[in-house]
Amino acid sequence: MTTSTDATTASAWRDLSPLMNPRSVAIIGASQRTTSALNREPRGNRVIRNLKGFGYPGKIVAVNPKYNEVMDCPCYPEIGAIPEPVDCVILAVPNRHVPDLLESAADAGVRAAVVFSAGFAETGAEGKERQARLETLSRERGFLICGPNCYGVLNVYGKAPLFASTIPPGFLAGPAALVSQSGGLSTTIANALMLNRGVGLSHIVSCGNQAGATVEEYFNYFIEDENTRVIAGFVEGFKQPYKLLEVARKAAARNKPLIILKGGRSEVSQRAAATHSGSLAGAAEVIDAAFRQTGVVSVRSLNELMDAVSIFSCDKFIQHYRGGRRIGVLSGSGGECTLVSDAASSVGLEVPELTEKTKTELQEAVADFGNMNNPLDGTGAMYDDEKIFPRLLQALIDDAHIDVVTVNLEANDPRPKELKSGNRFSAAIEKAAASSKKPIACFSSIVGGPVDPEILLPLRAAGVPLMEGAECATTTIRNLAEYHEFQRNRQTDAATETAVAPAKKLPSGIMPAEAAFRLFEEFGIPVVPTLLARSADEASVAAARMGFPVALKIESADITHKSDVGGVALKLSDASEVRDAYSRLLDETGRRAPHAKIDGVVVQRMASDGVEMILGVKRDPLFGPVVLCGFGGILVEVLKDVAVGIPPLSLAEAGQMVQRLRGFAILGGVRGKPPSDIDALCGAIANLSRMASSLGDQLAGLDINPLIVLPKGNGVVAVDALIQMR
Amino acid sequence: MTTSTDATTASAWRDLSPLMNPRSVAIIGASQRTTSALNREPRGNRVIRNLKGFGYPGKIVAVNPKYNEVMDCPCYPEIGAIPEPVDCVILAVPNRHVPDLLESAADAGVRAAVVFSAGFAETGAEGKERQARLETLSRERGFLICGPNCYGVLNVYGKAPLFASTIPPGFLAGPAALVSQSGGLSTTIANALMLNRGVGLSHIVSCGNQAGATVEEYFNYFIEDENTRVIAGFVEGFKQPYKLLEVARKAAARNKPLIILKGGRSEVSQRAAATHSGSLAGAAEVIDAAFRQTGVVSVRSLNELMDAVSIFSCDKFIQHYRGGRRIGVLSGSGGECTLVSDAASSVGLEVPELTEKTKTELQEAVADFGNMNNPLDGTGAMYDDEKIFPRLLQALIDDAHIDVVTVNLEANDPRPKELKSGNRFSAAIEKAAASSKKPIACFSSIVGGPVDPEILLPLRAAGVPLMEGAECATTTIRNLAEYHEFQRNRQTDAATETAVAPAKKLPSGIMPAEAAFRLFEEFGIPVVPTLLARSADEASVAAARMGFPVALKIESADITHKSDVGGVALKLSDASEVRDAYSRLLDETGRRAPHAKIDGVVVQRMASDGVEMILGVKRDPLFGPVVLCGFGGILVEVLKDVAVGIPPLSLAEAGQMVQRLRGFAILGGVRGKPPSDIDALCGAIANLSRMASSLGDQLAGLDINPLIVLPKGNGVVAVDALIQMR
Repeated sequence: MTTSTDATTASAWRDLSPLMNPRSVAIIGASQRTTSALNREPRGNRVIRNLKGFGYPGKIVAVNPKYNEVMDCPCYPEIGAIPEPVDCVILAVPNRHVPDLLESAADAGVRAAVVFSAGFAETGAEGKERQARLETLSRERGFLICGPNCYGVLNVYGKAPLFASTIPPGFLAGPAALVSQSGGLSTTIANALMLNRGVGLSHIVSCGNQAGATVEEYFNYFIEDENTRVIAGFVEGFKQPYKLLEVARKAAARNKPLIILKGGRSEVSQRAAATHSGSLAGAAEVIDAAFRQTGVVSVRSLNELMDAVSIFSCDKFIQHYRGGRRIGVLSGSGGECTLVSDAASSVGLEVPELTEKTKTELQEAVADFGNMNNPLDGTGAMYDDEKIFPRLLQALIDDAHIDVVTVNLEANDPRPKELKSGNRFSAAIEKAAASSKKPIACFSSIVGGPVDPEILLPLRAAGVPLMEGAECATTTIRNLAEYHEFQRNRQTDAATETAVAPAKKLPSGIMPAEAAFRLFEEFGIPVVPTLLARSADEASVAAARMGFPVALKIESADITHKSDVGGVALKLSDASEVRDAYSRLLDETGRRAPHAKIDGVVVQRMASDGVEMILGVKRDPLFGPVVLCGFGGILVEVLKDVAVGIPPLSLAEAGQMVQRLRGFAILGGVRGKPPSDIDALCGAIANLSRMASSLGDQLAGLDINPLIVLPKGNGVVAVDALIQMR
Repeated sequence: MTTSTDATTASAWRDLSPLMNPRSVAIIGASQRTTSALNREPRGNRVIRNLKGFGYPGKIVAVNPKYNEVMDCPCYPEIGAIPEPVDCVILAVPNRHVPDLLESAADAGVRAAVVFSAGFAETGAEGKERQARLETLSRERGFLICGPNCYGVLNVYGKAPLFASTIPPGFLAGPAALVSQSGGLSTTIANALMLNRGVGLSHIVSCGNQAGATVEEYFNYFIEDENTRVIAGFVEGFKQPYKLLEVARKAAARNKPLIILKGGRSEVSQRAAATHSGSLAGAAEVIDAAFRQTGVVSVRSLNELMDAVSIFSCDKFIQHYRGGRRIGVLSGSGGECTLVSDAASSVGLEVPELTEKTKTELQEAVADFGNMNNPLDGTGAMYDDEKIFPRLLQALIDDAHIDVVTVNLEANDPRPKELKSGNRFSAAIEKAAASSKKPIACFSSIVGGPVDPEILLPLRAAGVPLMEGAECATTTIRNLAEYHEFQRNRQTDAATETAVAPAKKLPSGIMPAEAAFRLFEEFGIPVVPTLLARSADEASVAAARMGFPVALKIESADITHKSDVGGVALKLSDASEVRDAYSRLLDETGRRAPHAKIDGVVVQRMASDGVEMILGVKRDPLFGPVVLCGFGGILVEVLKDVAVGIPPLSLAEAGQMVQRLRGFAILGGVRGKPPSDIDALCGAIANLSRMASSLGDQLAGLDINPLIVLPKGNGVVAVDALIQMR
């Protein structure tokens, strides 16, 4: 289980080199028998074959009491018997042997291990116990463990494949590092990137249950690695959520895009993830907030992951991209023009009209076919006359309304090769890209079918990535635009993370209203004038001092829903009404909640009219306190229209939360109401996030309901609130 | 432009045989010169080559004054000179010659034509005029035209490829008919279906601008065609929307799934569609309603289209499918189990827990790995021990909680062939499918990469379709489930289409309130007691008769927003208040709307408390009057939470509209309110749809705002309404 106790301490990062780039390895589980009882090559032998095939420069030894050598490597009866120091042991043995072996390896001075076996936290009690021993070893002795329940680590430039799966020939080295909790998906993704997208890899890590090294640690290693420029992850659960936030911010600061496909968004898939890697998946909306606030490129499918890695790792394309969501589209199919426009619109890209200048020039340069607009339909003419395509392409490159040029290219049309026309267009695209200062990308109509390497590879070399399908391509360009917007805001948004002093220890249970209101005011959240009265006289004096109309509310730690027991009186307009209400409230609650201990009655100035919102803080199992906001009433209760943020929140981040609400337009003034004070609302959210950080683990939950957002310039005011301390 | 005037007349369908299955064809635009100036084969020659290559059994002649024969076919100087009757001419000539040639063909007794050339309604005024001549020919003389701006018609079983694009060798005949407005996409989709999915085709039609034959007519032809069992379309705009509804209902009645990818959902893509095929795309939400009400399988991408055609055309699979949304998932990758669960959940499928019986049997039958649940992770064990996979598969087939079994199979893993493991699993799946009475489908992790025909084709023969990617596969099964649900409801939902008598001609403009309210009552929509008063006395008498409290509203055809000019007074509780209000309303509106002609004041009984909704009718350019419903206030104004239905609407369809509203739960009773009378609301919607049908083209628009939905059992009541006649 994960806790958020490391939230307040600055993270120290372990050096993963003994695991990721070991000078020497020892394989336990290799044999002179090259086929197992199941007629399969033993995993240990496969690792040795991988190491040799990949040209591993370090020392390889085996551990097996039966032999003196295995596959031409020296073999020793036990780890302690190996004469030279060993950086990393690789365990291809049944799970029941793993804990003892790792402990003896640590005793022998080994610093890291890769454990392939399944049967740990993802299974029953026995497995969980086994995993606990590995976690102790990692935590207490700094022993680095990849796995268990994984395929291991493949460091491409270090030529160190501590990897259980067969490595295909023609492995493509490149700038993308991949970490996947799933072993199967690690190779599926890696192979698809290399073969379908022409993207080379710097590392593949299948990290399994993360009993030792976590995805956060691998991300950090990749950020520091000079061969890696883009980081991709398939993750089911985060073990060190606060390190995730830190490492994601670090990746953004170094401009290394961190692209994550997070599995386990639904209840069933959370069950599946727990079964698969013993991971706690976390609430999807909180993970989304964490990604958004730290600039993680969040993708929703394997194909989106691949296209994102493809585009972010295409250097020339990225260099030419200056931000913006306006795409130009060139296709020989009018139908595809329609479809890509639909796809662009649904993900939030624009397909703007071309400038008048471009339209005029096109009309002059090219014969009269169709309308010259964006999307630009080359029609059959583009196939019949080879002068046309380059002119259309150049027109989009030169047009001032276009940020990214996209070309629909049938590189993976399933037609037999002799019918393909993609190649002559790809040559024209390469030529245009050579002199273009604008990014150009290609996309296919249908996802699937063979990708022609003769089209793919030269285009990629020219800085033109190839994406599959209009939907995925437009989503990917939108993701790129969002990343760019995040980076721009990150640089202008001044450092907001001024440290928040932790609050002193406060009593547990529901905080009394007066104390709660004082605390809000301390953190700069305005509250309506509120006083506790213990008699009708005190109440009427307090009311007169704060000004009428007022409300009276019964004060008792035993009553959470005051209006349910007749404990609320509103709109009292003079002293006698206050006195009457005081007695009525005591009578009524005495009758309806006879066992509640009553501390008195709270007198509150009635707030002016405005938009009623709800702010809150709840505890997330991964990230600790998270801030919520939504509109009071139907929108939050029926439509669950709630935005989530992880403290600390800057004013800009608070603003983004508010804008994400589906009812956002309400704050602009609807149905004859004036615009609301959105700035003050953002201030209250940011201040609430500081308050949540300060209270930290003490805080069980908090609700401000309602917070009245007054007309622009008049601020906000909290009317009712509940703070529950642990 | 399309009109909805054919709404009330029963459609007569033209016989498309002379176009789709001609006994003889004449090609205009073929030549003895086999390459054009642009070094390309002339289209006319390509058609002759296609006809001969495909074994066309009819007579082929050419028309060209220069030759006596072309490609071994007799050639005549003009159409009139051909001695035998010709069913269909094929025009591969510049667009300017087309209208004259078609008219002379019609004069010569030819009954159909295929026109490839572009340059008609999709371009400027000259093109629109050219197209108008073709439309006249079609409409007035019944001349059948495919195109212009298309690739033509390919009738596979009739061996009649009147088709401009090269037809690849190894064309696969089968049950799927395809019509696409886009020529490029027609071949892209067809080739992908054949090569990536193993789906055979009965027809390919690229219908272009639909100047003559429309997609509705092709659909009808396919429904009547005995070789076709599944119909697929890529459509940008419907030319005969009311025939669409009729033909879609006919397809549903014959149980031939009609699968449509409708382009032009966004503003930009509507512009693109207009440019591409001169089509009016129509409002996306109205098209969605039309599809939903008639059982069209609506897909959103080319890949969804392909997977839908693949699954619906896989006979054994469909025979075994008995409805239901519960899928069982078997994968060797735990990561994929997580992802497919996320995908299933997001499209509305269930991944239920297995029965205790299955779990127990699995524990006994298979070694202890992971938890035995759904999704079922076969882990590495499934690869190591070949007995395991068939047992896991059979467990899902036998489990009572599962409606459809899905297997994650790496048939299009881009790994080199020697590393593939899919084949041995596919053999096991074929074996299981042979005795299974439950549908089984396979899906790949990543969309894209080569599909191995050695896996694809035998599986398909065994009734196991292959889909690409978890997202697309789950969407497709959801589409299948929805189609099944539609068919079940269609059979139980009694015929609701009792003919509605058209209303007599009513005056244009805003209908007076009393008349409007009488009309609502005539159609069974309850209204609050409402009387027009012309004096304060009349008003107070009327109020006393209907009972207090009442509201007064100024009555004037010149005032649309009465409260804006002080023309409304609410909650009047006795006769003197009514008298005072009467004078005040007249004074106030006289001052604020001095030029309005005042007809008096409407007296209305105040309605009881309930949920305020808005019902309305607006005119859609394609479908004529459509019915809208939504919640009053924020939900409709800010969140645009509106449901659309096309008249006539049954009670069940009205219920589905209401359930689609995001705020639907409000009607169940929230925030302490009682449940609302949903049945009465549905009745009002269905009655409003009858009223819209009856008023027909006379109706410009109609709003009931608010319609109060009272607590369950108490009905609904319209409080205010506006009817605008044309």
